[in-house]
Amino acid sequence: MFREQIKVLDCTIRDGGLINNHDFDKRLVKEVYKAVSAAGVDYMEIGYKNSKNVFSPKEYGLWKFCDDEVISEVIDGIESKTKISVMVDIGRVELEDIKPKSQSPVDMIRVASYVKDIDKAIYMVNHLHDKGYETTINIMAISRDQGAELDEALVQIEKESKTDVVYIVDSFGFLYQETMEHLVKKFKDIIKTKEVGFHGHNHQQLAFGNTIESIIHDANYLDATVYGIGRAAGNCPLELLIGFLKNPKYDIRPILDLISNELVPLRNKIEWGYIIPYAISGMMNEHPRAAMALRQSDKKENYREFYESLINIGFDE
Amino acid sequence: MFREQIKVLDCTIRDGGLINNHDFDKRLVKEVYKAVSAAGVDYMEIGYKNSKNVFSPKEYGLWKFCDDEVISEVIDGIESKTKISVMVDIGRVELEDIKPKSQSPVDMIRVASYVKDIDKAIYMVNHLHDKGYETTINIMAISRDQGAELDEALVQIEKESKTDVVYIVDSFGFLYQETMEHLVKKFKDIIKTKEVGFHGHNHQQLAFGNTIESIIHDANYLDATVYGIGRAAGNCPLELLIGFLKNPKYDIRPILDLISNELVPLRNKIEWGYIIPYAISGMMNEHPRAAMALRQSDKKENYREFYESLINIGFDE
Repeated sequence: MFREQIKVLDCTIRDGGLINNHDFDKRLVKEVYKAVSAAGVDYMEIGYKNSKNVFSPKEYGLWKFCDDEVISEVIDGIESKTKISVMVDIGRVELEDIKPKSQSPVDMIRVASYVKDIDKAIYMVNHLHDKGYETTINIMAISRDQGAELDEALVQIEKESKTDVVYIVDSFGFLYQETMEHLVKKFKDIIKTKEVGFHGHNHQQLAFGNTIESIIHDANYLDATVYGIGRAAGNCPLELLIGFLKNPKYDIRPILDLISNELVPLRNKIEWGYIIPYAISGMMNEHPRAAMALRQSDKKENYREFYESLINIGFDE
Repeated sequence: MFREQIKVLDCTIRDGGLINNHDFDKRLVKEVYKAVSAAGVDYMEIGYKNSKNVFSPKEYGLWKFCDDEVISEVIDGIESKTKISVMVDIGRVELEDIKPKSQSPVDMIRVASYVKDIDKAIYMVNHLHDKGYETTINIMAISRDQGAELDEALVQIEKESKTDVVYIVDSFGFLYQETMEHLVKKFKDIIKTKEVGFHGHNHQQLAFGNTIESIIHDANYLDATVYGIGRAAGNCPLELLIGFLKNPKYDIRPILDLISNELVPLRNKIEWGYIIPYAISGMMNEHPRAAMALRQSDKKENYREFYESLINIGFDE
């Protein structure tokens, strides 16, 4: 009943880091690695590789930079088949600082890109591929970029890039099953030699449903986070995804323990999940940036005013 | 772009009552009625009509009984096109106590039934129809009853009942879009002279996605609750559904105000939403009864133990 090609990627620490400046302590990251390893999860994305010339280590935690030595310190000695992934953003990383795969604990590097930056993404992914890494291109904010530029970008990725996977990223939590079906089919039509993946945000409680939709239409790389932690409303909950997949290699129980012991207490300190301003951002196809700012203000529960501020942005002709 | 036939039914007070013994004060119920009226919601289900010989008014709040006078007290004087609905359960109501529609503030009576009780449901619904009410049959726990008995029940409803609507009720939050599609198509195949509706539970964060799926396959009666309140994980959030529907008769803003002013404070007193034991119940196709008991105990965060208790129930040959 299960599809062997499906790979689950946990991005608890990477996407969760977007709500705490990537400042998880090593103990917690080790606990997550132990749990996802015991659960049989295929990949764990442990953070971003950013240049320290672009971001200051004084302002951000370890997982904004993901030095190889720090990763090794956390994962060494734990029995695991889970591969390590890191994410890079266009223009925020110095490629020459990234060692060849043979000298690094990292297995996969994922390049996050908007459609407009796809040339740069292809350059980066080819460079990283040649250094020995598995690679992906994650096309962000795709709900805003569904036109001819997307088609052209996909054709170019198929022809020019050495990436293993191309991800649909619903950054704003705007998509639902019909738009998902349309996008996955488009990707599968154009991308013949690589896998398709999906990364959903949960602004409208659709991240898990959209992930199922991507499975139905043959996406094989699936992102999720423990207890749905992640920017704004968070992501597809890993525990739901593992509960849904029928592959006996996955075991939900270590993830349940991790939620009991770590994520429930953490949720009392930092906020993510179903919160109305994020839902409003999602239904309006907006970045949750304004909603995240609202939640830090004394107007955090003024939903009507926030809604009206978004509909009144408007567009001049 | 919108489908005029779609009707939205708010069951905030009715399904929400399942987590507080139906003990909402009249002020709050009036606020909900004002808000859903201003939002253009088609129906508001205000509670259950139960016999006081079956349940004691000492143990339950007003909305377990929904006396006509109590309803009138709450809704009179408020300008509204929103119709009032109440729910009845098989064997818990005395039909002779229900006045003709012409003497009651109630517009619609919904009969909740398991597949096995469908003969009784048809009898009740015909009786209520003849008294002048709009009626529905809500087939509960349908994820457990998808076989030939369901088909027979649907044929019988189509032939013998005067109901206006037949609802698919995903009591356990087990369905996802493929099972939804299958069920809605089956209903539409057999039920030719009545509308089809959907009432979802949100154990796996799929209630909104499943409601969208039911819309795609032409269900026209859609249940939702403000801020997703309801038994266990709750229901499809009304604000998401209104945000999705394109009919300009709906206005989300009064619902946003109601959430800011009433539901957010209420959520600090009573619990519903994405909570792991409810998610586990959903993925196992179990009633959330055991999970609700767990949440009242000192083991409320022992998720692994709860999971194992469910998988170890087992079935003898």
